[in-house]
Amino acid sequence: MTGYRSIAWNGDAVRMLDQRRLPHETVYLDLKTSDEVAAAIRDMVIRGAPAIGAAAAYGIVLAAKAAQGRSGAEAWRTVLDAADVIRAARPTAVNLFWAVDRLLAAMQPYEGHSERLVDVALEQAQVIEQMDVNTNRAIGQHALPLVPDGATIIHHCNTGSLATVDYGTALGVIRAAHEHGKHVQVLVDETRPRLQGARLTAWELAQLGIPHEIIVDGAAAHLMRTRKIDFCVVGCDRVAANGDVANKIGTYALALAARAHGVPFYVAAPCSTLDPHTGSGDDIAIEFRDAEEITCVGGTRIAPDGSAACNPAFDITPADLVTAFVTETGILHPPYAESLAEARNAADRAHAQRQT
Amino acid sequence: MTGYRSIAWNGDAVRMLDQRRLPHETVYLDLKTSDEVAAAIRDMVIRGAPAIGAAAAYGIVLAAKAAQGRSGAEAWRTVLDAADVIRAARPTAVNLFWAVDRLLAAMQPYEGHSERLVDVALEQAQVIEQMDVNTNRAIGQHALPLVPDGATIIHHCNTGSLATVDYGTALGVIRAAHEHGKHVQVLVDETRPRLQGARLTAWELAQLGIPHEIIVDGAAAHLMRTRKIDFCVVGCDRVAANGDVANKIGTYALALAARAHGVPFYVAAPCSTLDPHTGSGDDIAIEFRDAEEITCVGGTRIAPDGSAACNPAFDITPADLVTAFVTETGILHPPYAESLAEARNAADRAHAQRQT
Repeated sequence: MTGYRSIAWNGDAVRMLDQRRLPHETVYLDLKTSDEVAAAIRDMVIRGAPAIGAAAAYGIVLAAKAAQGRSGAEAWRTVLDAADVIRAARPTAVNLFWAVDRLLAAMQPYEGHSERLVDVALEQAQVIEQMDVNTNRAIGQHALPLVPDGATIIHHCNTGSLATVDYGTALGVIRAAHEHGKHVQVLVDETRPRLQGARLTAWELAQLGIPHEIIVDGAAAHLMRTRKIDFCVVGCDRVAANGDVANKIGTYALALAARAHGVPFYVAAPCSTLDPHTGSGDDIAIEFRDAEEITCVGGTRIAPDGSAACNPAFDITPADLVTAFVTETGILHPPYAESLAEARNAADRAHAQRQT
Repeated sequence: MTGYRSIAWNGDAVRMLDQRRLPHETVYLDLKTSDEVAAAIRDMVIRGAPAIGAAAAYGIVLAAKAAQGRSGAEAWRTVLDAADVIRAARPTAVNLFWAVDRLLAAMQPYEGHSERLVDVALEQAQVIEQMDVNTNRAIGQHALPLVPDGATIIHHCNTGSLATVDYGTALGVIRAAHEHGKHVQVLVDETRPRLQGARLTAWELAQLGIPHEIIVDGAAAHLMRTRKIDFCVVGCDRVAANGDVANKIGTYALALAARAHGVPFYVAAPCSTLDPHTGSGDDIAIEFRDAEEITCVGGTRIAPDGSAACNPAFDITPADLVTAFVTETGILHPPYAESLAEARNAADRAHAQRQT
């Protein structure tokens, strides 16, 4: 373990590592209301699909706490209103909706008993939190055969402990190989506009002692042309039923380059990001964020005053560019409509067993 | 005309607009020695293949001035030494070597007559300077049939007046269409690491009143998938005899995305960037620049202390991804080995005619 964790419950508040201030400052925030949690998700104090799932869950816990002492109907209304605010924080990552829905489903039988809501919500949130760590470790284990000793790996965005509760998804793949004594080196896409690669992934790799070099996003294709790259690995914010992947902007360009060079392109996907209700990538809402994320860097405006920017935060990588998914249930190959459905079912069964 | 020019000769110094300080400050530097010119090229006070060609030419003029009054052999040695320093400033753009070689060839008959060297050099430098503007305007005219009214165009790096002496190559294509009353809008790749798109191209487009939005480099592929993009257009630092193109890092990834979406990919190439002595892209030296260009933005370190970065400044786009070249002699189609050779010959003939 590396001694940092994106999120933790401390009894009456949810504590988050403020990722906007990394790598230079390590600041923890204690959030005491569901509105504060929604704002933290929206403002990217915490980001990464699995991490915002866990954050959303604790947001619901805080809403249930706020509802304590109110009448049953009023308490439940408080929780549902908070759920709406949290759901609206960011549109693309499905884990946010998955976590909220999961807590509401568990709490609904007690909607008339406001004194029980906190306990039920907290139990579910803690299950989500612990499941996430187990899931990521399982992803890392399943991926081991994919990682040759001496591998050079291209990684996009941040998918480590910071993007999850702990350990990481795509970064968990790299980390598990490293922990098994394989020598790996990582080319870290800086991941404009918010530089999660240069700021967060590089920081995590440094903490883990894994050799790495930061590259600009536009250099990955060139490096595939001029160096031996063993594979690309990314996380995801949502996987549609057909295998189309929503992930951080730049992922699709990376996948196209990988295809052109015959470099395997792996997506590390906890089953919580597999969305059976979304048919294809065309059905996924892509968040557009503020132009200032592009026109200002580190508080300094780089663009001319008045020049506009277009800032889609995510893109869609079509399923046919994905060599394989790595989930906590194993490695999934095409046809993805089937293998993804099987993985979801297996994950649901495993979860049901844990609850009985 | 827009009232700014990357470079001008003022009688005893070469004046350059310091592009490192744009878009926020407009500062001109007067350089009085060839060493200062070489440093300005190396430090990217001036950049863009045609612009550094003109800068190199005036660097030789300054060396010839410094040699005035010395003996013939000593004067010529001074010029040759300066030429070596200038050639070493940056390795990839061929215009640098082209301009230096051109001046030396014109000066060599007078190597024993140091008093004549300045005049000969200055005449050649002014020819290069004026040719560049004419060349760019011709490129823009030839490209007009390629630009539909209402076009949305993706542009990488900076190729405008700042990258040339004036008018621009790829930006000249956009500008000529705009001047002919066509409505165009430009998606401006910000072009990490040095952000020539966000800083310089956006600034030039704003000056010209051409609608534009800045995007991160990783978003171009996504926007090709989700919007109607009419074409991509880029400049180039060197074109090999087979049509492989060296240009700013990120160009190759853009070309791969264009190919995947059937979007035409045009390269605006003055014949001075066509290098018959380089067989293919594999023979082109790719400059690696300082890691700090990636790890620091606007003077602020964004990466963790100690994280390394790998910073190739250029990449190679294979000829088969280029839909067409636009040169001052016309539009060139495959097979490029032939059409590029013809264009070079036509440009040489035109030049010889001008000189007689």
